[in-house]
Amino acid sequence: MGYFITFEGIEGCGKTTQIRLLGEHLSLLGHRVVLTREPGGCQISDKIRTILLDADNLGMNPLAELFLYAAARAQHVSEIIRPALESGCIVLCDRFTDATIAYQSSGRGIDRATIDLLNALACQSIEPNLTVLIDCEINVGLNRAKQRIDSATGPREERFELEALEFHQRVRNGYLDLARQNPERYFRTDGSGTIEQISATIAERVLKGLKDSSRAIR
Amino acid sequence: MGYFITFEGIEGCGKTTQIRLLGEHLSLLGHRVVLTREPGGCQISDKIRTILLDADNLGMNPLAELFLYAAARAQHVSEIIRPALESGCIVLCDRFTDATIAYQSSGRGIDRATIDLLNALACQSIEPNLTVLIDCEINVGLNRAKQRIDSATGPREERFELEALEFHQRVRNGYLDLARQNPERYFRTDGSGTIEQISATIAERVLKGLKDSSRAIR
Repeated sequence: MGYFITFEGIEGCGKTTQIRLLGEHLSLLGHRVVLTREPGGCQISDKIRTILLDADNLGMNPLAELFLYAAARAQHVSEIIRPALESGCIVLCDRFTDATIAYQSSGRGIDRATIDLLNALACQSIEPNLTVLIDCEINVGLNRAKQRIDSATGPREERFELEALEFHQRVRNGYLDLARQNPERYFRTDGSGTIEQISATIAERVLKGLKDSSRAIR
Repeated sequence: MGYFITFEGIEGCGKTTQIRLLGEHLSLLGHRVVLTREPGGCQISDKIRTILLDADNLGMNPLAELFLYAAARAQHVSEIIRPALESGCIVLCDRFTDATIAYQSSGRGIDRATIDLLNALACQSIEPNLTVLIDCEINVGLNRAKQRIDSATGPREERFELEALEFHQRVRNGYLDLARQNPERYFRTDGSGTIEQISATIAERVLKGLKDSSRAIR
């Protein structure tokens, strides 16, 4: 089996940049690396992503939203993540189950037991070995996300950015709770440092995780 | 509260025609009637329908499919069905929860408990007062469905028609089991009669149901 790393954090925390840098770093060290993201990561899940993030769909029922995330995840796990892990790759995934807990439970107030149940069904026993939380102030993250949206030319993927500040604060707090509840799996890093600083601390932690994991297998 | 009637049956059994005729009949009698369908029935759920029925999405994972139906249903119930029932309308819906049991459990073999759980979550306590099952031989239904597809000009909604005959036989048997298990709620009619014959028996049963229901309320 390979090694599964998920990246979490609020909008604009810098996940995408850090995933790319870590992917390059690991590739240079000779690892086979798969970079992917949720919602999406494969053709059917990307179609679901379009519905989920489209700013036209503001009237979406919270349960419908939760089921759409579960659908995209079930397809992504079975089509991309599981086969990649089974072939020994390191999978770096931008958001996974913890995003559903932070956004739909802490953010929207959906019952945590329902979310845990749907996450478990969708994941088909796949779990992250390591979760990198890039924590940052919500005003910093949202400003960055806003700049990205203003300069974007593709589909308007801003349904979540349009939520109130209180929503994003609850999401951030939800992530911090998850990090406290899962200290073994979580690596929390401060997103206010320079890109190079953050990247170096993440790479250090990941290489330690890979070493421990290969020791555990032997 | 209004009155909620669902129509079920395999592809090509004649549901769409019968729903239209019943809707016209009830409107002429002075009832306020809402005709709708699943998957779909509102803008967001219609987008989900496109993914579900698109013949390009043959590689869809069965759990992803199940979650997409649940998502479309949660949105449809909250946006269309519940408000229509609360305003006293008769809602006629082409497929509902029983289709998920027949197609995804009897057809695909997904664990019935999982399906019941997702159906219950998606329905938010809304249940049909009456379910009309138009039963027909699978070769009759599939031939009709094929003609409809061949002459259609819209999107290629034929992912289910492309399934093997055995799949459709399991779906039909699944519906017949449901009718036996729920004799109070189910009205099973033979889809091999003429359109007028079938329409007359359905109208008779529906008017009886409405009468009993209004008596029960008084």
